[in-house]
Amino acid sequence: MERTTIDRENIVSQPLVGIIMGSKSDLEVMQAALEQLEGFGVPFEVLVASAHRNPARVHAWAAGAAGAGMRVLIAAAGKAAHLAGVVAALTPLPVIAVPMRTSDLGGLDSLLSMVQMPTGVPVATVAINGARNAAILATQILGVSDAGYRTKIEAYKTSLAE
Amino acid sequence: MERTTIDRENIVSQPLVGIIMGSKSDLEVMQAALEQLEGFGVPFEVLVASAHRNPARVHAWAAGAAGAGMRVLIAAAGKAAHLAGVVAALTPLPVIAVPMRTSDLGGLDSLLSMVQMPTGVPVATVAINGARNAAILATQILGVSDAGYRTKIEAYKTSLAE
Amino acid sequence: MERTTIDRENIVSQPLVGIIMGSKSDLEVMQAALEQLEGFGVPFEVLVASAHRNPARVHAWAAGAAGAGMRVLIAAAGKAAHLAGVVAALTPLPVIAVPMRTSDLGGLDSLLSMVQMPTGVPVATVAINGARNAAILATQILGVSDAGYRTKIEAYKTSLAE
Amino acid sequence: MERTTIDRENIVSQPLVGIIMGSKSDLEVMQAALEQLEGFGVPFEVLVASAHRNPARVHAWAAGAAGAGMRVLIAAAGKAAHLAGVVAALTPLPVIAVPMRTSDLGGLDSLLSMVQMPTGVPVATVAINGARNAAILATQILGVSDAGYRTKIEAYKTSLAE
Amino acid sequence: MERTTIDRENIVSQPLVGIIMGSKSDLEVMQAALEQLEGFGVPFEVLVASAHRNPARVHAWAAGAAGAGMRVLIAAAGKAAHLAGVVAALTPLPVIAVPMRTSDLGGLDSLLSMVQMPTGVPVATVAINGARNAAILATQILGVSDAGYRTKIEAYKTSLAE
Amino acid sequence: MERTTIDRENIVSQPLVGIIMGSKSDLEVMQAALEQLEGFGVPFEVLVASAHRNPARVHAWAAGAAGAGMRVLIAAAGKAAHLAGVVAALTPLPVIAVPMRTSDLGGLDSLLSMVQMPTGVPVATVAINGARNAAILATQILGVSDAGYRTKIEAYKTSLAE
Amino acid sequence: MERTTIDRENIVSQPLVGIIMGSKSDLEVMQAALEQLEGFGVPFEVLVASAHRNPARVHAWAAGAAGAGMRVLIAAAGKAAHLAGVVAALTPLPVIAVPMRTSDLGGLDSLLSMVQMPTGVPVATVAINGARNAAILATQILGVSDAGYRTKIEAYKTSLAE
Amino acid sequence: MERTTIDRENIVSQPLVGIIMGSKSDLEVMQAALEQLEGFGVPFEVLVASAHRNPARVHAWAAGAAGAGMRVLIAAAGKAAHLAGVVAALTPLPVIAVPMRTSDLGGLDSLLSMVQMPTGVPVATVAINGARNAAILATQILGVSDAGYRTKIEAYKTSLAE
Repeated sequence: MERTTIDRENIVSQPLVGIIMGSKSDLEVMQAALEQLEGFGVPFEVLVASAHRNPARVHAWAAGAAGAGMRVLIAAAGKAAHLAGVVAALTPLPVIAVPMRTSDLGGLDSLLSMVQMPTGVPVATVAINGARNAAILATQILGVSDAGYRTKIEAYKTSLAE
Repeated sequence: MERTTIDRENIVSQPLVGIIMGSKSDLEVMQAALEQLEGFGVPFEVLVASAHRNPARVHAWAAGAAGAGMRVLIAAAGKAAHLAGVVAALTPLPVIAVPMRTSDLGGLDSLLSMVQMPTGVPVATVAINGARNAAILATQILGVSDAGYRTKIEAYKTSLAE
Repeated sequence: MERTTIDRENIVSQPLVGIIMGSKSDLEVMQAALEQLEGFGVPFEVLVASAHRNPARVHAWAAGAAGAGMRVLIAAAGKAAHLAGVVAALTPLPVIAVPMRTSDLGGLDSLLSMVQMPTGVPVATVAINGARNAAILATQILGVSDAGYRTKIEAYKTSLAE
Repeated sequence: MERTTIDRENIVSQPLVGIIMGSKSDLEVMQAALEQLEGFGVPFEVLVASAHRNPARVHAWAAGAAGAGMRVLIAAAGKAAHLAGVVAALTPLPVIAVPMRTSDLGGLDSLLSMVQMPTGVPVATVAINGARNAAILATQILGVSDAGYRTKIEAYKTSLAE
Repeated sequence: MERTTIDRENIVSQPLVGIIMGSKSDLEVMQAALEQLEGFGVPFEVLVASAHRNPARVHAWAAGAAGAGMRVLIAAAGKAAHLAGVVAALTPLPVIAVPMRTSDLGGLDSLLSMVQMPTGVPVATVAINGARNAAILATQILGVSDAGYRTKIEAYKTSLAE
Repeated sequence: MERTTIDRENIVSQPLVGIIMGSKSDLEVMQAALEQLEGFGVPFEVLVASAHRNPARVHAWAAGAAGAGMRVLIAAAGKAAHLAGVVAALTPLPVIAVPMRTSDLGGLDSLLSMVQMPTGVPVATVAINGARNAAILATQILGVSDAGYRTKIEAYKTSLAE
Repeated sequence: MERTTIDRENIVSQPLVGIIMGSKSDLEVMQAALEQLEGFGVPFEVLVASAHRNPARVHAWAAGAAGAGMRVLIAAAGKAAHLAGVVAALTPLPVIAVPMRTSDLGGLDSLLSMVQMPTGVPVATVAINGARNAAILATQILGVSDAGYRTKIEAYKTSLAE
Repeated sequence: MERTTIDRENIVSQPLVGIIMGSKSDLEVMQAALEQLEGFGVPFEVLVASAHRNPARVHAWAAGAAGAGMRVLIAAAGKAAHLAGVVAALTPLPVIAVPMRTSDLGGLDSLLSMVQMPTGVPVATVAINGARNAAILATQILGVSDAGYRTKIEAYKTSLAE
């Protein structure tokens, strides 16, 4: 499975969060998710691959993510944003969806394409362009069983109030 | 490749149109497409499979459709309706999308999830619940190179005017 | 902290999922979530309390949920559906939001009121009336660190494909 | 109760109107409300606090507003704009909601999140970015029992016609 | 000024709240407002008159409401719902708007026609079909200067929590 | 009745079309209507007056328009755009409505506030910002009984095709 | 030019209003327009013809309407409702558009397809399912130069107020 | 039949795809379709003509397209975008619709005006501003019976994945 990991000096451990986005242009918005995960000390990997233009790569990545040790996946896409659903169909891991704002319909298309998943295959959708919130939610999910991340979330919530 | 063909006495030739729908409940609406194709004498096959619940079957069907001799594909789905896009990613054939009406948003979610495909992978979207029109469009596409279907479309258009 | 647990013979263990809904009328839809959690063997508790009509009870429940041993929360509400956001503000746990269909705007109001959370306080929104998917997502989150639930999710996904 | 009052030389009397907004960035729009209240000679206080990021401060302010002598509250927020509803749940005072324009959905999300309040806990919603109108409405409410404010409203309405 | 007051034995005092609705068919929904005002002991009067079909009657009623001793007005209308705005243009009193659900657009038309008032003439809009909330809001406004109504609102809010 | 006619050297005859707009800021868009009427040689007058801020002036103008010899009225307004409906309630003349684009909802609010008029009081709504089309429609209406304007419309339609 | 006139004993004069509708199923709604025109004593003719299924008949009717003595046209259609625009492109007469309610999007599709006409070719759009209003508007247009119809409109408006 | 072909050195063969757009301003967006067809080596012709402003030219072009040897038509238009439907009514060829983004409603009006075609006359709608996808879809349709175009589509899809 090909992995296009963004090199970062502080990512030396096993990635726990896998981030996939449909287009390089999504990276500008998704940068906030990367920064937030770094802030929480959560190791992650990033793949840019479109569910429509490169289905094989997406398929391989999604189907292999759990086996590769990842715990939570984040998928960002715009317009007819199928990426999160396609990934969720292929993994038992929880999948967080970030609908990208679009220049014509403001992201309503991305949002509905992601959140309205049929019964059986949920994705956890956050706000339009809600990249940072996707990272926080991923860390909350890790914190369900990891006291360290739970503590970081609690500290973050305290900092928000200040 | 498993095929769940609806048995019909008059389907003995090679299917030229492949119809896939995400749920058995879509069949009530899609029946109009089946009838219209029969009316035009277009051989077809039908598969009920969800892009999210059974991605492997969808993948196999879509990837094999061209090789199996099909010429045009029709995909019907509702809500976050990824089926047409998933199929289109895996075939060089033209893919027609039928957005299903939904009980909450009226089908606006299905429509946007289908029509707003990203650059590179189009689907040919018809109206919400536009099953019969999908069959007509498929036959028009066959008629591009088949004088028999062209003639049938012309006759149909004449009949519409009466 | 007052708890209005729905008595069920098979709930004898520590609840891991807490479900809160804004109105008793939401229970008809949310029943699917309860059944799905039972199917997965996930112990849960249920509280009916409105963020607007009974903010103190919601506050106490949300603020105490983590300490009471719960791991994931599910909040269902309709119209100006603040319940998930109010709960998320008060807990480090991941919060899943189920927007209820509404008779006038179809649930678009519930959906936007839930999913468009501001930076810092995400909720994981599923489809309008997506009760069963909320339960599946909650179990997926538990499965991040619990091999038993992971196995159940994998078995469920296999069953979907059949 | 902590109060972040914006200092203004002419605010020496007991505040009658309390303004709360979810983010400092809302102040640019809400400035029109402050100016309009000053124009009517209505003493007010302003608090910037998010219902999601700082629920305790919002709770304390809302629950204490009536006892602190305030008569009308104004809440401004954007996206999943719960602030007005959260405040209204905690006070017997009338609460005016100002939905903020948003960059993706134009403020439709803020509007529906505010106006579609469930039975029992109304908020008085004005137009998207309708800051000045919120101030006028607050003054009209004060004018119900205060002939001075009634007179100012009447004079204002006369001036509008010119 | 003609007044079509709905006779009720317990309305013997000076009406403090004036309710106007655009069509008799609105009465079915607005009945909840009447009952709620009765429950709070708020004397009111009711007029059925359309801003478009009977502008003179609406004009006379709105222009005379303050002089007739009313304190708060409630206007209910559907579709291109101008009634609240027309009334607000003619009175210094606070005007509460109730957008009626519509059979085609669900009430989105009524809502936008009411809430999006231009600068200078606010109306206090409640939810689509939010008749009872309009009555509660009217009573909250009366409670700003009337300790009796304030007490009733506080008791009502307590009852909601039970 | 006060008339704020925009002076133009070529307006010497009796105005046949009366144009009213809710705000001076609408003039930038409505300029196209003025130019088109000039192009067709249709005498017109223009009034800037808000249905909400100056109801008396609007009332006088609308109620007097037919008696003053006008044949068709055009009303332009934005947001909760009541102007066309208010005018239509007071005149037997046909009233053309021009919904103004708005910065938050794109003019959907203006459009629905104008076009969704209740039974009995129609307005003839054109596109969002459709100022020139309002002038063409007004001239078509004059052309129903005036061969000169009919001829000009026919010539205009011929010119469009070139 | 083929004319499918609905026979009515009282239509003996030259039709002044031509009504076209895209489908027989529209007649149920459009019946109100026919009754209203009869009530005003306006002679009319009715054609059922689809712009898409029978463009030649629509073309002939629209292009010949002015020459046949008609003064105003009314076009009713649903979904991608092109009928009014197609007719307006072919006639110098004013064209009134009635968007039909649709079962999926409530008529928003019909409304936008009609009202958003490009510069040069206006249609006068009334409310979704606004059949009666279309007839009133047509009569108002006739009343611009016909004192008899003007008087009937004035009497109708008086009757509305009662 | 007048044809306004855009001269291009490499268009020497019989046009197989006919592109029509409602306005010269659409050319900026549609340029991507032209380039993509050139990239695939598909000969095409282009006509700028509005269904509303020049119905005769549109009618002649659409009615003659099949006879002139074209195989697929592409129609691009904005707002009340009737062009694709008008063309589809007059040809047995498959018609692809490209809804243009609009400055007020983002293209939702164009999209609904195109995709919601009534039964009998489908158009194959692609995304808002989806010019390049229209060209790809047209080539896919040609590829149904032309192995050369099929091969080019397959190569294109391979290139997308890289």
